Amino acid sequence: MKMSNGVEWALHSCVTLSQSHEPVPAARLAELHGTPPAYTAKHLQALSRAGIVRSTAGQVGGYTLTRPAAQISVLDITQAIDGTEPAYRCAEIRQRGPLGIPAGQCARPCAIARTMATAQQAWSRALAEVSVADLAAGIDADSGGTALADVRGWLLGTRS
Amino acid sequence: MKMSNGVEWALHSCVTLSQSHEPVPAARLAELHGTPPAYTAKHLQALSRAGIVRSTAGQVGGYTLTRPAAQISVLDITQAIDGTEPAYRCAEIRQRGPLGIPAGQCARPCAIARTMATAQQAWSRALAEVSVADLAAGIDADSGGTALADVRGWLLGTRS
Repeated sequence: MKMSNGVEWALHSCVTLSQSHEPVPAARLAELHGTPPAYTAKHLQALSRAGIVRSTAGQVGGYTLTRPAAQISVLDITQAIDGTEPAYRCAEIRQRGPLGIPAGQCARPCAIARTMATAQQAWSRALAEVSVADLAAGIDADSGGTALADVRGWLLGTRS
Repeated sequence: MKMSNGVEWALHSCVTLSQSHEPVPAARLAELHGTPPAYTAKHLQALSRAGIVRSTAGQVGGYTLTRPAAQISVLDITQAIDGTEPAYRCAEIRQRGPLGIPAGQCARPCAIARTMATAQQAWSRALAEVSVADLAAGIDADSGGTALADVRGWLLGTRS
């Protein structure tokens, strides 16, 4: 089971955007997080399609969050990048072979699929409980309270 | 995030093996679950490497579970097929770019990685709580109590 590495980038970028009152150009997000422009653009498009960021064109154009950071969960961002399909996809093995169950009797997911769905829900719930604001607070606490001020300063510096 | 489709096959096969007192040949497992021999062999090898099944050679050779079905969890089987790596792998984006944190200060996982680890633990715990015996009971209950008897009958029939 693997998550796309774009998820880490998207989470860092949303924390960064939560610290700015102005749109942040894609190139600046790429610079801050050390990622190539094409990689950055692809993932910003995914966040935009999911309604998490919006872009503003023009001289001071760039990306902003569409809602307060406390209202964007880690699950929202993970699903924007990695999709909403559950990790386990049942191929209905129970319908195959000499003891195969007729499809008409398989409306309810089998015990295996139910177990996987329960685990997926536990995972989703854990990610839904943490917001971008929580991540920002955690990152700031880890730095002894300097990280977010540094990000804000760097973002302002790029405007001057 | 995707799980290998071999996980479904391995779970069904371990439920099947839990119903047999005799070794079950790989070809019979493949027949029962409608999977190609090479696919079957590959996943039986993975289960064997993880110590969940063992093979017996000879005229009545085949595969058996190495311990009671109540002592084999869905997590054991999932990790045997899909590996034990967590879904999220941190690429230490926090160390990159103009505000990068020196590697020496990154001993503790960052707030993002900690959130992902919490979700992974919730997922793992849900799968560790369900055994092959639980799955067998669930599958039997879904069938109104005929499924496991049918499997045992079919397995015995192949020996006669």
